[in-house]
Amino acid sequence: MSMRPRIAVTMGDPAGVGPEVCLHLLASEEMKSVCTPVVFGDLGILRRVAEETNLPLSAAVLRPAEWTENWAKVHQPSVLDLKALPADEVVPGRVNAATGRAGFTYVDRAIDAALAGQVAAVSTAPLNKEALHSAGINFPGHTEIFAARTSAPRSCMMQYSEEITCTFVTVHVGYREVPGLLTKERILDVIELTAEGLRRLRGREPKIAVCGLNPHAGEHGLFGDREEERIIIPAIEAARKKGITIEGPLPPDTAFLPWKRKSTDAFVCMYHDQGHIPVKALAFDSAVNTTLGLPIIRTSVDHGTACDIAWQGKANPSSLFAAVRLAVRLATKAK
Amino acid sequence: MSMRPRIAVTMGDPAGVGPEVCLHLLASEEMKSVCTPVVFGDLGILRRVAEETNLPLSAAVLRPAEWTENWAKVHQPSVLDLKALPADEVVPGRVNAATGRAGFTYVDRAIDAALAGQVAAVSTAPLNKEALHSAGINFPGHTEIFAARTSAPRSCMMQYSEEITCTFVTVHVGYREVPGLLTKERILDVIELTAEGLRRLRGREPKIAVCGLNPHAGEHGLFGDREEERIIIPAIEAARKKGITIEGPLPPDTAFLPWKRKSTDAFVCMYHDQGHIPVKALAFDSAVNTTLGLPIIRTSVDHGTACDIAWQGKANPSSLFAAVRLAVRLATKAK
Repeated sequence: MSMRPRIAVTMGDPAGVGPEVCLHLLASEEMKSVCTPVVFGDLGILRRVAEETNLPLSAAVLRPAEWTENWAKVHQPSVLDLKALPADEVVPGRVNAATGRAGFTYVDRAIDAALAGQVAAVSTAPLNKEALHSAGINFPGHTEIFAARTSAPRSCMMQYSEEITCTFVTVHVGYREVPGLLTKERILDVIELTAEGLRRLRGREPKIAVCGLNPHAGEHGLFGDREEERIIIPAIEAARKKGITIEGPLPPDTAFLPWKRKSTDAFVCMYHDQGHIPVKALAFDSAVNTTLGLPIIRTSVDHGTACDIAWQGKANPSSLFAAVRLAVRLATKAK
Repeated sequence: MSMRPRIAVTMGDPAGVGPEVCLHLLASEEMKSVCTPVVFGDLGILRRVAEETNLPLSAAVLRPAEWTENWAKVHQPSVLDLKALPADEVVPGRVNAATGRAGFTYVDRAIDAALAGQVAAVSTAPLNKEALHSAGINFPGHTEIFAARTSAPRSCMMQYSEEITCTFVTVHVGYREVPGLLTKERILDVIELTAEGLRRLRGREPKIAVCGLNPHAGEHGLFGDREEERIIIPAIEAARKKGITIEGPLPPDTAFLPWKRKSTDAFVCMYHDQGHIPVKALAFDSAVNTTLGLPIIRTSVDHGTACDIAWQGKANPSSLFAAVRLAVRLATKAK
């Protein structure tokens, strides 16, 4: 019996770099040594991408009926062939309603498998939001799909890397909408989810820092609408009362200085770019996107479909490998 | 006759790290080899800080009347003793109305000197905005003081470093106020100021990238209020018609990836933290703040008054040295 956790890896939008990074994964000795990867995707598309890129495709192939019956016996790298989209209907780099729908199907089935306990975690290759929308699937991203499909009462995005880790109070909303979405309750939820997630990863009480919303964290009311005093500080104080080691609100621009990063396990960020800018500037290729607060474990690559280089053999699989490594780590600690 | 440019260096808020980094400057052989520094400050305070920190204070001392008469003959490191605040009234690390007012006086006199052509440039040590405000001086920072005092018709902040350079459409305003301040005209002004400034520094046509406002630059209208389509893209197109090499709006989080930084001379940012977060995360201690569009040259340190370590001999002068180096470079190119 294999002790390696079975990890569902979704193929991502077929027109992007997802199929290619999945081929790299199935070929990686390191990946196969830490888990049993099961790619939720389309065999025909993987075969076509393998030909175009000269990458090998060596994996067991399962049909959905075989998976349903025999999932517990799957201990070798596999492709679950969901036949969501015929390979000849895909134009490399051209996402559309059909590729968006197929990409969603892979995620949808992987969530089913995780909720049923058939896989220990789900790691996702990139979807394209515009393709999802043209298919009538109105989720802005994976985070929201997983939250809705698992009926999580509260959840948040975490961008994890060894260099810097951020969690998010708001994510895929317009710049203008952020202040209206900040409440003491939501910020406290994200602080608590962050503390739980980091406790599991670090095996000790983590040090958490919360960023302000305004430049210089409002400089005591000089800038902004006193969001720090009215909303963020009360949430920090409530978290401290619950025993969480926490500081803030920090001026966002000095929060991520090198020595601050070293002494901080995670930064709670008020909006998407507040945390995504430093994570991508400092830890591109190694950062992993994960969703905290779900009943299942989910990690994701930190990049998009990269349509300009799709199917050309240029895609770097290191972000997917990092996502799978974190999924394995979380799955092992969760046991 | 010395060919070294005479640079006014303001002492900053007396209760912060400004006096200390000025002492380092006056003692630096490298600094003295590239310019003639004239510290606009208070001799008594510099003497007290020199005693507290065991730093040397070796400079010619000038009274304002002597400066007015003999400035053209000043070719050695000097202190212009403005007697704005008695040394015994300063408590290290405690900024207040009196220190704020003194810090403002140093800047005010340095601007006079630059406008009169007595110095080639002004490099500023940090002020504290709350101290300024309690003194009834309602400027949010140096950038705005210089713009007002020199009656510049248009200007913008630039954060310059070898690693990454950003310019700013808005700076010291609350998060909520940013969208209302974005206009095609202002963005085009900042793009043009950026192109002019970088042309001078690089001696060639620069490559400029403009960031979007919303996550993923709005992803074609999925997030936000179409600020990219309505305001930012028209400004970029107008700049391109004027012959500027420009791209954007870029998704803010992927704008600052390593390979993008290498191929981009400057990023035009919509708000303070969009650019200050990556600049401080990547180039703290080497980034220099400068104001583009002024009739005089002005550079500044990239840090605050750091009151927690003021007068303790711990302050790192490298940001002030970088500011003076850039001032010298701009002054030399401007000749």
